[in-house]
Amino acid sequence: MKQFINAKDNLVTEAIDGVLRTAGGRLARLDGYPHIKVVVRTDWDKSKVALVSGGGSGHEPSHAGFVGQGMLTAAVCGDVFASPSVDAVLAGILAVTGKAGCLLIVKNYTGDRLNFGLAAERARAFGLTVNMVVVDDDVALPDLPQARGVAGTLFVHKIAGALADQGADLETVTQAAQRVIDGVSSIGMSLDTCTVPGSPKEERIAAGKAELGLGIHGEAGIEQVDFESAEAAMAMVVDKLAATLAPGPHVALLNNLGGTTPLEMSVLAEELVTSTIGGQIRWLIGPAPMMTSLDMQGFSVSLLPVGKADEPALQAPVAPWAWPGCHAVGDVEVLPLPDGLTPIQPIPSKNPEMAGFIKKCCAILIAAEADLNALDAKSGDGDTGSTLATAARALLEAIDRLPLADLTQLYRAIGLELSQTMGGSSGVLLAIFFTAAGDASANGIGPVGALKAGLDRVQQVGGAKPGDRTMIDALAPALEALPDGVDAAAEAARKGAEVTATITRAKAGRATYIAEDKLAGHNDPGAEAVARLFEFIATQRHAAE
Amino acid sequence: MKQFINAKDNLVTEAIDGVLRTAGGRLARLDGYPHIKVVVRTDWDKSKVALVSGGGSGHEPSHAGFVGQGMLTAAVCGDVFASPSVDAVLAGILAVTGKAGCLLIVKNYTGDRLNFGLAAERARAFGLTVNMVVVDDDVALPDLPQARGVAGTLFVHKIAGALADQGADLETVTQAAQRVIDGVSSIGMSLDTCTVPGSPKEERIAAGKAELGLGIHGEAGIEQVDFESAEAAMAMVVDKLAATLAPGPHVALLNNLGGTTPLEMSVLAEELVTSTIGGQIRWLIGPAPMMTSLDMQGFSVSLLPVGKADEPALQAPVAPWAWPGCHAVGDVEVLPLPDGLTPIQPIPSKNPEMAGFIKKCCAILIAAEADLNALDAKSGDGDTGSTLATAARALLEAIDRLPLADLTQLYRAIGLELSQTMGGSSGVLLAIFFTAAGDASANGIGPVGALKAGLDRVQQVGGAKPGDRTMIDALAPALEALPDGVDAAAEAARKGAEVTATITRAKAGRATYIAEDKLAGHNDPGAEAVARLFEFIATQRHAAE
Repeated sequence: MKQFINAKDNLVTEAIDGVLRTAGGRLARLDGYPHIKVVVRTDWDKSKVALVSGGGSGHEPSHAGFVGQGMLTAAVCGDVFASPSVDAVLAGILAVTGKAGCLLIVKNYTGDRLNFGLAAERARAFGLTVNMVVVDDDVALPDLPQARGVAGTLFVHKIAGALADQGADLETVTQAAQRVIDGVSSIGMSLDTCTVPGSPKEERIAAGKAELGLGIHGEAGIEQVDFESAEAAMAMVVDKLAATLAPGPHVALLNNLGGTTPLEMSVLAEELVTSTIGGQIRWLIGPAPMMTSLDMQGFSVSLLPVGKADEPALQAPVAPWAWPGCHAVGDVEVLPLPDGLTPIQPIPSKNPEMAGFIKKCCAILIAAEADLNALDAKSGDGDTGSTLATAARALLEAIDRLPLADLTQLYRAIGLELSQTMGGSSGVLLAIFFTAAGDASANGIGPVGALKAGLDRVQQVGGAKPGDRTMIDALAPALEALPDGVDAAAEAARKGAEVTATITRAKAGRATYIAEDKLAGHNDPGAEAVARLFEFIATQRHAAE
Repeated sequence: MKQFINAKDNLVTEAIDGVLRTAGGRLARLDGYPHIKVVVRTDWDKSKVALVSGGGSGHEPSHAGFVGQGMLTAAVCGDVFASPSVDAVLAGILAVTGKAGCLLIVKNYTGDRLNFGLAAERARAFGLTVNMVVVDDDVALPDLPQARGVAGTLFVHKIAGALADQGADLETVTQAAQRVIDGVSSIGMSLDTCTVPGSPKEERIAAGKAELGLGIHGEAGIEQVDFESAEAAMAMVVDKLAATLAPGPHVALLNNLGGTTPLEMSVLAEELVTSTIGGQIRWLIGPAPMMTSLDMQGFSVSLLPVGKADEPALQAPVAPWAWPGCHAVGDVEVLPLPDGLTPIQPIPSKNPEMAGFIKKCCAILIAAEADLNALDAKSGDGDTGSTLATAARALLEAIDRLPLADLTQLYRAIGLELSQTMGGSSGVLLAIFFTAAGDASANGIGPVGALKAGLDRVQQVGGAKPGDRTMIDALAPALEALPDGVDAAAEAARKGAEVTATITRAKAGRATYIAEDKLAGHNDPGAEAVARLFEFIATQRHAAE
């Protein structure tokens, strides 16, 4: 398996150093790498009860990520999925424990219990007061005498941490921790196993299956279940938790086991809150990765009944960034849509000359459909002609509804019409062109200046510049020349269109993906359309003269 | 591919509702599901410049996760990897824009540019002042005319967000955003592709390979490179960034593209900070998922030169939890190990009677090695006898160093000796037993009471109770009977050991994993050892009488 590590042996020490370097000076570590991996607060004066937790690594941000004011005083880190040594735990205890004493918060695994337990004994021999609580929140097997400690441990860190921070004595902090442990229930579900660094991934969970009630060290779940949907998955998890649910309001902790995307986690949050026990979930912590199992694509839910004393402790601000906060669960607030989404239809007005002009422009675009498609097939998907012809037909159909006598409104109305009828990027760009021209016209800018303003906006939004092999290569010189007459404009447009055939490195639009030799010798179809339009206008003008 | 979703069609709307429900009332959405997916601040009064961003979904926590005081005012969300519609963007603009105007922050993708651009035009037609900036921070292809917008976008959200929050006018906010865009560079690397919901995963990156300079929508990287280690990977990324690095201090943003574990990200942080450009990285944001690409196992680094004005804007606190904060990069602070890890060796003292007693106990354990191993083979790995015999031999070897004349110190010294010489859980448990007995003895409790205190601690730490098929089943009754004499103790120990043969459901230790029928009829080897010890002591006592 590929992982962003250097060597399995120094993975954890390097990761801890990475955490320390970027903690803004809040955290330090004890000397003693590689055997002693202890992260401590730098702002600690031993005047309050110290909270020490830890265990094997691979559960990040637990535990080092939760060291800081309001939560842990020190985290003792083992190697991946391996308990830290007695010496490491003892070092952590001795480093942070003063007269107020120390509470060890240990997850219920034999190695952790024994190593933390013996370290506590050795610390007591120095006259330190050390208590220890063991978290066993996993309800996967309700009759298992030794339930595992999983993400519910975070509740202990938070509530005991808040009390200790307020200056509560060791007995009070210990009792609160034990009360939390007695009340909390957790269970996890996963779609895949985790990848232990340096080991091949165990392909244990078949397609269409999920594991329910699994551990955080790759231990198999109590059962493999059919996986149908997020809703069904959460219903199974909720079902297990509901079996022992106490009455009254609860706080839920929705933990990402590692490899689940934020999108999935938010869907699961919605499913949890709207589940059969949703009415009892008054607060939610997460969804967030808190007690992970490396890259496991799974989640766990932990539930704790909340008494009056717990709410402020859960809400109290803390220094560790990894704590996602405890938020009241509420309905989704839906605000009404603002006015203005349904565009105001312009008031139609008559202008036979303008109507004729537009009809002729549309006719030339419709006539050019096949030619432009053929040209586009050289550099794109061969639909420029059809796209423009469809827009022209829609404009012809709408012509009696247009405000033909008011150029400002007409520009805007054409922009609106094109945005509603013309597909693809070119439709949006032409809509922007005419809408921006309308805005400029509204600000008193003349007809040609307004079109130039529209072109400026098209360049800003679309990102294309002259020379990029787009319709701009014909349109920009045509508008520049237009004050000198339509002949000059037509000539400039044609010249610009022909130049596009020599631009073999497109810089905008789909032609950027086409090999250079395929582009050479063919005009850009958009530029060609502009040239034909101006040439036709010039011809018509002469015919009318 | 299995994912915790219900249906591809309502994935994004359900995820947004999940975000809103758990935002503690800070966020709401506009009406108009499924087409209009706009998340807005609930505490917004339009008195300041509004910041609107968005784009396709699949980049969570971007963009809805960054809506809140100090960052975005609204996020317009498309479907996964699909630009939101013009109407959706317009709805977002209209919902939050007042007289102070609005800045659209758009990543450089054609769809986003066009849809946000046209929406801006339509909003301007309502008399609103709307500016738009386009983020193009990807330096994967330095000569690409249209660089993509990736995680550097977060710098724009943060710095423009801080200015807008302070009440800066639209021109000032826009200029700052553009200055950030002009300065920021980003590049990504990944070991695997992302899994688009509803589509099979593209297996594009072979074993041993990584992609450098890849996009956030599954676009292939500019090159596939050999993947060797986190260090080499970061060196390649740094190399690309160094090419255009401005002089002076920079802030780096280390982004998790989705599926990279926190352990890996911390290793990468360490590699970045200690890389050839590490000296120019004064602040770090992350590592954290900020602009993800679904579940992609990759990361990106974004660099921004930091002027005097930017630092307070980067540091300013914000409401969105997803923002990991901007922290000064520092050395790893290493604190000296506390005193006490090297245990104080007890002062040896003589007591021939005690020495003889200990020697005899050790002898019986050594003699029982094979028997106890055979018994353990029925329920474990067959090493209980050897473990105890090894400990006994070590104790014999140490006997002249023991404080034989001081029971308190002797208990502690035996605990220390066992913790250093006896492997496995049983070594730790016996160490705890004797160390706790020593503590009790130090507190004035008599010899038997001290041993009982030791046993209490073993039960608390180890989690086993009488009846769980452990040595406690013999030791507890023996200590209980000991005040009535060694005969009574031996009898109680033997009785307890025999009962373990009838306990077919072990509740602690390795025997919990053994089938019930395999356990029946065999004494627990630990309990058997205790019974033999007490029986031998009784025999010896009688022999001495």
